[in-house]
Amino acid sequence: MFILCICVFTPQQIQFGDQKQEFNKHPRTGHPSLSQSFSQSSTDSCSSVCDDSSEVEVSPRDTPQRTSKGLSDFCIRNIKHADYGRREIEMAEQEMPALMVLREKAGREKPLAGAKVVGCTHITAWTAVLIETLSKLGAKCRWTACNMFSTQNNVAAALAEGGIAVFAWRRQSEDEFWWCIDRCVGAETWQPNMILDDGGRLTHWISKKYPSLFENIRGIVEESVTGVHRLYQLSKAGRLYAPAMNVNDSVTKQKFDDLYCSKESIVDGLKRTTDVLFGGKQVVVCGYGEVGKGCCAALKALGAVVYVTEVDPICALQACMDGFRVMTLGEVVRQVDIVITCTGNKNVVRREHLDRLKNGCIVCNMGHSNMEIDLVSLRTAELTWKRVRPQVDHVIWPNGKRLILTCVILMRSSFCSTVPSLVLSITATTQALALIELYNAPEGRYKQDVYLLPKNMDEFVAGLHLLMFDAHLTELTDDQAKYLGISKHGPFKPHYYR
Amino acid sequence: MFILCICVFTPQQIQFGDQKQEFNKHPRTGHPSLSQSFSQSSTDSCSSVCDDSSEVEVSPRDTPQRTSKGLSDFCIRNIKHADYGRREIEMAEQEMPALMVLREKAGREKPLAGAKVVGCTHITAWTAVLIETLSKLGAKCRWTACNMFSTQNNVAAALAEGGIAVFAWRRQSEDEFWWCIDRCVGAETWQPNMILDDGGRLTHWISKKYPSLFENIRGIVEESVTGVHRLYQLSKAGRLYAPAMNVNDSVTKQKFDDLYCSKESIVDGLKRTTDVLFGGKQVVVCGYGEVGKGCCAALKALGAVVYVTEVDPICALQACMDGFRVMTLGEVVRQVDIVITCTGNKNVVRREHLDRLKNGCIVCNMGHSNMEIDLVSLRTAELTWKRVRPQVDHVIWPNGKRLILTCVILMRSSFCSTVPSLVLSITATTQALALIELYNAPEGRYKQDVYLLPKNMDEFVAGLHLLMFDAHLTELTDDQAKYLGISKHGPFKPHYYR
Amino acid sequence: MFILCICVFTPQQIQFGDQKQEFNKHPRTGHPSLSQSFSQSSTDSCSSVCDDSSEVEVSPRDTPQRTSKGLSDFCIRNIKHADYGRREIEMAEQEMPALMVLREKAGREKPLAGAKVVGCTHITAWTAVLIETLSKLGAKCRWTACNMFSTQNNVAAALAEGGIAVFAWRRQSEDEFWWCIDRCVGAETWQPNMILDDGGRLTHWISKKYPSLFENIRGIVEESVTGVHRLYQLSKAGRLYAPAMNVNDSVTKQKFDDLYCSKESIVDGLKRTTDVLFGGKQVVVCGYGEVGKGCCAALKALGAVVYVTEVDPICALQACMDGFRVMTLGEVVRQVDIVITCTGNKNVVRREHLDRLKNGCIVCNMGHSNMEIDLVSLRTAELTWKRVRPQVDHVIWPNGKRLILTCVILMRSSFCSTVPSLVLSITATTQALALIELYNAPEGRYKQDVYLLPKNMDEFVAGLHLLMFDAHLTELTDDQAKYLGISKHGPFKPHYYR
Amino acid sequence: MFILCICVFTPQQIQFGDQKQEFNKHPRTGHPSLSQSFSQSSTDSCSSVCDDSSEVEVSPRDTPQRTSKGLSDFCIRNIKHADYGRREIEMAEQEMPALMVLREKAGREKPLAGAKVVGCTHITAWTAVLIETLSKLGAKCRWTACNMFSTQNNVAAALAEGGIAVFAWRRQSEDEFWWCIDRCVGAETWQPNMILDDGGRLTHWISKKYPSLFENIRGIVEESVTGVHRLYQLSKAGRLYAPAMNVNDSVTKQKFDDLYCSKESIVDGLKRTTDVLFGGKQVVVCGYGEVGKGCCAALKALGAVVYVTEVDPICALQACMDGFRVMTLGEVVRQVDIVITCTGNKNVVRREHLDRLKNGCIVCNMGHSNMEIDLVSLRTAELTWKRVRPQVDHVIWPNGKRLILTCVILMRSSFCSTVPSLVLSITATTQALALIELYNAPEGRYKQDVYLLPKNMDEFVAGLHLLMFDAHLTELTDDQAKYLGISKHGPFKPHYYR
Repeated sequence: MFILCICVFTPQQIQFGDQKQEFNKHPRTGHPSLSQSFSQSSTDSCSSVCDDSSEVEVSPRDTPQRTSKGLSDFCIRNIKHADYGRREIEMAEQEMPALMVLREKAGREKPLAGAKVVGCTHITAWTAVLIETLSKLGAKCRWTACNMFSTQNNVAAALAEGGIAVFAWRRQSEDEFWWCIDRCVGAETWQPNMILDDGGRLTHWISKKYPSLFENIRGIVEESVTGVHRLYQLSKAGRLYAPAMNVNDSVTKQKFDDLYCSKESIVDGLKRTTDVLFGGKQVVVCGYGEVGKGCCAALKALGAVVYVTEVDPICALQACMDGFRVMTLGEVVRQVDIVITCTGNKNVVRREHLDRLKNGCIVCNMGHSNMEIDLVSLRTAELTWKRVRPQVDHVIWPNGKRLILTCVILMRSSFCSTVPSLVLSITATTQALALIELYNAPEGRYKQDVYLLPKNMDEFVAGLHLLMFDAHLTELTDDQAKYLGISKHGPFKPHYYR
Repeated sequence: MFILCICVFTPQQIQFGDQKQEFNKHPRTGHPSLSQSFSQSSTDSCSSVCDDSSEVEVSPRDTPQRTSKGLSDFCIRNIKHADYGRREIEMAEQEMPALMVLREKAGREKPLAGAKVVGCTHITAWTAVLIETLSKLGAKCRWTACNMFSTQNNVAAALAEGGIAVFAWRRQSEDEFWWCIDRCVGAETWQPNMILDDGGRLTHWISKKYPSLFENIRGIVEESVTGVHRLYQLSKAGRLYAPAMNVNDSVTKQKFDDLYCSKESIVDGLKRTTDVLFGGKQVVVCGYGEVGKGCCAALKALGAVVYVTEVDPICALQACMDGFRVMTLGEVVRQVDIVITCTGNKNVVRREHLDRLKNGCIVCNMGHSNMEIDLVSLRTAELTWKRVRPQVDHVIWPNGKRLILTCVILMRSSFCSTVPSLVLSITATTQALALIELYNAPEGRYKQDVYLLPKNMDEFVAGLHLLMFDAHLTELTDDQAKYLGISKHGPFKPHYYR
Repeated sequence: MFILCICVFTPQQIQFGDQKQEFNKHPRTGHPSLSQSFSQSSTDSCSSVCDDSSEVEVSPRDTPQRTSKGLSDFCIRNIKHADYGRREIEMAEQEMPALMVLREKAGREKPLAGAKVVGCTHITAWTAVLIETLSKLGAKCRWTACNMFSTQNNVAAALAEGGIAVFAWRRQSEDEFWWCIDRCVGAETWQPNMILDDGGRLTHWISKKYPSLFENIRGIVEESVTGVHRLYQLSKAGRLYAPAMNVNDSVTKQKFDDLYCSKESIVDGLKRTTDVLFGGKQVVVCGYGEVGKGCCAALKALGAVVYVTEVDPICALQACMDGFRVMTLGEVVRQVDIVITCTGNKNVVRREHLDRLKNGCIVCNMGHSNMEIDLVSLRTAELTWKRVRPQVDHVIWPNGKRLILTCVILMRSSFCSTVPSLVLSITATTQALALIELYNAPEGRYKQDVYLLPKNMDEFVAGLHLLMFDAHLTELTDDQAKYLGISKHGPFKPHYYR
Repeated sequence: MFILCICVFTPQQIQFGDQKQEFNKHPRTGHPSLSQSFSQSSTDSCSSVCDDSSEVEVSPRDTPQRTSKGLSDFCIRNIKHADYGRREIEMAEQEMPALMVLREKAGREKPLAGAKVVGCTHITAWTAVLIETLSKLGAKCRWTACNMFSTQNNVAAALAEGGIAVFAWRRQSEDEFWWCIDRCVGAETWQPNMILDDGGRLTHWISKKYPSLFENIRGIVEESVTGVHRLYQLSKAGRLYAPAMNVNDSVTKQKFDDLYCSKESIVDGLKRTTDVLFGGKQVVVCGYGEVGKGCCAALKALGAVVYVTEVDPICALQACMDGFRVMTLGEVVRQVDIVITCTGNKNVVRREHLDRLKNGCIVCNMGHSNMEIDLVSLRTAELTWKRVRPQVDHVIWPNGKRLILTCVILMRSSFCSTVPSLVLSITATTQALALIELYNAPEGRYKQDVYLLPKNMDEFVAGLHLLMFDAHLTELTDDQAKYLGISKHGPFKPHYYR
């Protein structure tokens, strides 16, 4: 089961991440990828909460195992825990009806028959439902983890027991991490023709070490902001050797990742980490993009007094119309009880602000980047840091003033937050359809470039999820479709709709 | 002063409109333009409410007048009422601080010096503020009305008294309407070099009758959906002879026209026409685009139980997440108290639905099109129509069942609804900036095509309106701007932002 | 049909009212009764809007008329307009299903058989439904108006035509007003045994002029704050000669009059009078009682930034928890766009505040009293008053600053506001049940004192109105009723529940 | 630090509780008191979460300890952990500014000088702030726990180290529980003159074992529903031998306990236990009292579709007006995703409903009673129960259908829920003021009866908490106070205000 784990990065970690992950630098997305940024010290504090069990530190590399059917082409922590993992997958299946319907609808025609998918994602109950859906639709899959710390060992065991060649366990060393990727790709008996990536490392590894594989690759499906950015760079440089689908920016997924997910998460995240009561609290939300809009709506509904800071007049005007006073951080910094950043920018909250905040103020990063708050500036001699919970640091001023720092990393498939399962379901369904589209596309439809999911498939993803809400679509009459100049079955939106 | 006037079109009027205004046929925008659709019978009923005074029906054409300074190049109802009009303009100025700031900021450099603007818009206190702003920025203006019924006579008098050559009065005949346009354009002593149009009729007239004028025209600014559609058609056909700016689709304006304006208007419009109490009422809103979102939010806030119908799964999914049950109209038609349409589609509510609605149900069109409700189907012998108020018809079934039909035409610059002045201010400011941009653009920046307002001017419009809310923007640091890869002063949004 | 008429009292009127209506002085309810406070000048400005038609000013007293059946025991404007009035009553019946169900349920047993009710209320389509319901339940009725200006003449005609002895017309002189009351009461052929009063004038007249009638009076039902206050005074003084039912404070009615009615009315009232857009507006609401809560909720939902002033820490704490900053008026007076008073107190907004308000600020009284804003202080030489609409005054400072004064009198059955029909329905149903209860109560249940409606009848009123919402109550099981220690059919609330 | 622990009672536990705690039977409050109802099995599952540390099970009774100053009149787990406890108390102090202000304001005059308070409450950081406040105001205190499982051992250590005679540790046996109470009361060297009780056990013990102490007892302050009920019974029976203050029903406390606390808690509680996403979920809330209102508001704000069941038409009508469809449980049982009970009634959700709920439905008790859901009916052979988390049970039908049972016990000072600290602060402040009032009341003001806190002290509690919101009260002018007929400094509310 996923539980919330919100981490405060130490400045050292941030710099470490920055140095290592050169290609992560990108406006609005400049966060180091998760596996890099969670260095030992921060994850240690998580481990007691996040971990399934305290495991003996013998590397699975050195302990060959076999499934009950005698298979051994996998490498995980403990195959005996497959039953526990299977129960978790079954529970996740209930929360992903869209994929289950897809299995049913497309299970007979097997649109992925012949596909050999090599995948690199978080390995959790939710991604397991995706992987097994791909299998049910005809694909053969080999899988590895995109993150050294996020694998659910029991789930990996269940996948292996079910016949998937999976190479992943929680708390890998960096060496083990790349070893797994290599084992996953480099099987002599098997050549992938599809790539499903989350973060770009698998794609990177193949281009570096097995470039010849690209001859057979029909398509890459990439999900992370970072990975997508990397693909666009490759494409620009003329070094992208297969069509790629950017599922991160598909409309259905975007709508839910940002607005709805932040609306559901902000209150939950802060309550779990700080037990704060929101009624009457004064809160400043930095940034009124989709994440900011979601945060503000949720906070206002619970009775907080919300201020907004913005650099962009169009967003600022929307904040005004939605009932939020638009102020600069400097103007409200002395009176607020909570500061939330979701700008995509860096150093939005700086030492000059932090010095003036009230005693007891909560400072929370809701953005994708971990640089929104200038934490480095707080690493000075006169300030004391105390880790009061795994997820929360107190910073104490000489006069006793205490700030509460927390950082809700709001990313789908983040390994330590309760991303609502609907978001995970939408992402996974989009990934599955992107694979189907790329694999089945007629020659020439896709070049060696980066594409968005076609609008009608995007709408199909949305449609599958309506089942969860018992929602009933209206069908256009022939007459109406003609009047609107569109097909009865969509796409209903122009290509530029967002 | 603007007051609400909501009209129910009789089927005859609709067909009349359709026949006359061929070019109005357009998905999502298929409404006849206002001046056409308000035929005699419906406007008569409005007149007692909308009109300033009951005037003697002698055409101003036949009654030459002079301003106090002896000018006579205008044609309006009564120059003596200029004082009343001036007071209304002064009040409107208070509600349009953005234009007033623009006057101040740009008044010295006179960016429209040398511009000769011929304009065709509604003539109201609000447009008067725009016209006089153009003058203050250096332009010479001649003006005519885009609608036979919407002119505020006192305001026209004040404009004339102030030296604007204005040709307009309330309740023109069609003949008078075109006569005014012709007088406005066809002055022998004067050749326009800019066009500001609302509905495309002025542009149409010039292309037909004075095509040679286009040699001097530096640009057309068009504001209506209909007019913009026409421009795109001309462009496609290679018959657009000047650069044109589509201000209808500028981002700032769009955000306010649809979402915020409908949110503010739906409750107001229905309360004024039907005095309905919303708490506990069951309402179905057809369409969950921006207008639908605004309606649903306002109704939910007042305690209505809201259902949504949608054809598009992406919008449907948003409705679900926002807390509205998505049903077909057929499923809820027997239980709802109010039906609201805002689909942009036609015949969304049909006789089959109307027959099953409850006694006392209110059926309201909030869409841009007046065809969303199939009113023709209600013109059968067994049904009785009663005009119970200027704005409301009752349709009575043989068994005594009574439906209440009303139609909130939610268009900016509609001549008979209380479009919030903020929306009018945003529109007018956008028009002014579009004129400035086109007039001052270096040779070659704009071809004979249709353009959107550049993003930075769009943001400038938004910024001017922040003044109304005492909102304070945050300025990017150099470092942040560099990190984001944008200029400190915007544009902040990518071109595709909506 | 009721339309909104919001009046600004001139200080003269207020003082006039104060002098005349001595007994109106009462904490939280100190407003002069309606008929007194609307002196000539203010109602003149209303008349063009409120009036059915401009009638010749010949007093109905001098023009005897007969119904189609030859009856002549009534005095109204014009019996020939009965048909119009009947249609309005029929429409009101649709909005008062509770009374219609009561007619059906109790029509056979005629619980008011033998009752002779003399009534003094507003005479509108809604009260007509009440009066005719009393008739259908067996009562004989004579009726007069409680207000000189609020009678709907057509409705009075329909009542007369239907056989009710009604004495009322719009725009009576004070002399005519009391003449009508006298004619209503003083019939030689008829002695009332029940009184239904609204404002206490009828009760007052009877005690002064026909005290002997009280021998037969089984009960008084009084609805207004003022009248109820008067009854308590009489009771205290030992001069109340019949049992009286205070329907003003029955729980069902109170819940709707204050919270829900203000929530529905504030936005409507201000939009109709000032066309203001609420999104982003800064509003201060003085007083966070039920009316204030309703106003704040509605304004917040539309995107206003709301501040609250309070004297009472318990209410202030609720405002905080609901997300409103609690400030003093002095602290926010310079920044707000709208000031709304609903304190029940006097001189809440004083000259010192009014002097500091922004240009264009709207100042609106939503309270029951018209003394919340110190209007007298604005009657100084340097300030100019302009009546810009019937319902709105501008007050202009020497420097051009302009305040917009308006006054939403939020009272049930106020003759010039769109009190939602549900509120009228609840009030009327409560009145009917109070009459039934008093008329049928066994000897000794009620003494010569003031009572509240018994809780089970209060719940019955609520239950009748659930029909309008298609709401389905759950019935307690025997076991549950026993567990809770109450009857299966209520009352469900303790007597002190509010 | 308090963390959430939500427990599903097995039917056995319920019956156990019922048998033991005879006096708990009371309409709307029939839950067994906490210490009784948490029998071994349910608390075991909590222990890993709730417990500070895994302790060796040697009874503190057998291990005498001394504070650093040599004091030994206490009995707790481990005096060495006092430092940890002190830090927790210091953090709690920050969240209880009202008590801190009270210390400051009343610290000099020491209104409790001479008071000897014996207390029996949960022993947590929050109650520690209360206890130490009493000390600072002059009282001598002896304390014991009202619950066998809720004591925070570190806090108890800090209290002891600070000189309070405290007798409490987490996970006492029943024998130890009463031993502590006895040690607390029965000191030979010390006679209490005030009682602060939570649950009535201390009062019970004194009346049974040390009745003579009542000669000196000036007052009892009782906080729990159960304890208050018991006091009323004693009073009725003439066996209450000291004045008692019912702080449970003071207005300030009530407002926050029910409405605001449930609004803040329902979403938090369900997210923590089930990670459910609320957008678009269909939820039925049984009961529309204050707790139901809070739940419905919070759920609606997050985008849930909420239905309400009610037995009481007045509450039902409010639900309608607030925008919730009022249905019977039977009507919606097949379609809802979540069932929440907060009726105060028993067996509201019965086997007949549970059988028809959808697969995956969450059933959650938010009421004070744990009998709202008929759990006994689910203990049949064909159903499988699985404890999937400490706080959550799955019940699985033969066809695989799975219900998720959870039970948010929403009680202030419940030992295992994150009751917002504001609620705890209000309760503690009310308790302190009640003690001060009873201790200082002039002879004769209070008889041997149960009283509510005087309105002005209630308002004082509210006022102290305004500090947390930087809220500024308005002060009445002399003139206004006179007009309203009240004192400038309150009480502002009539005695019957709720």
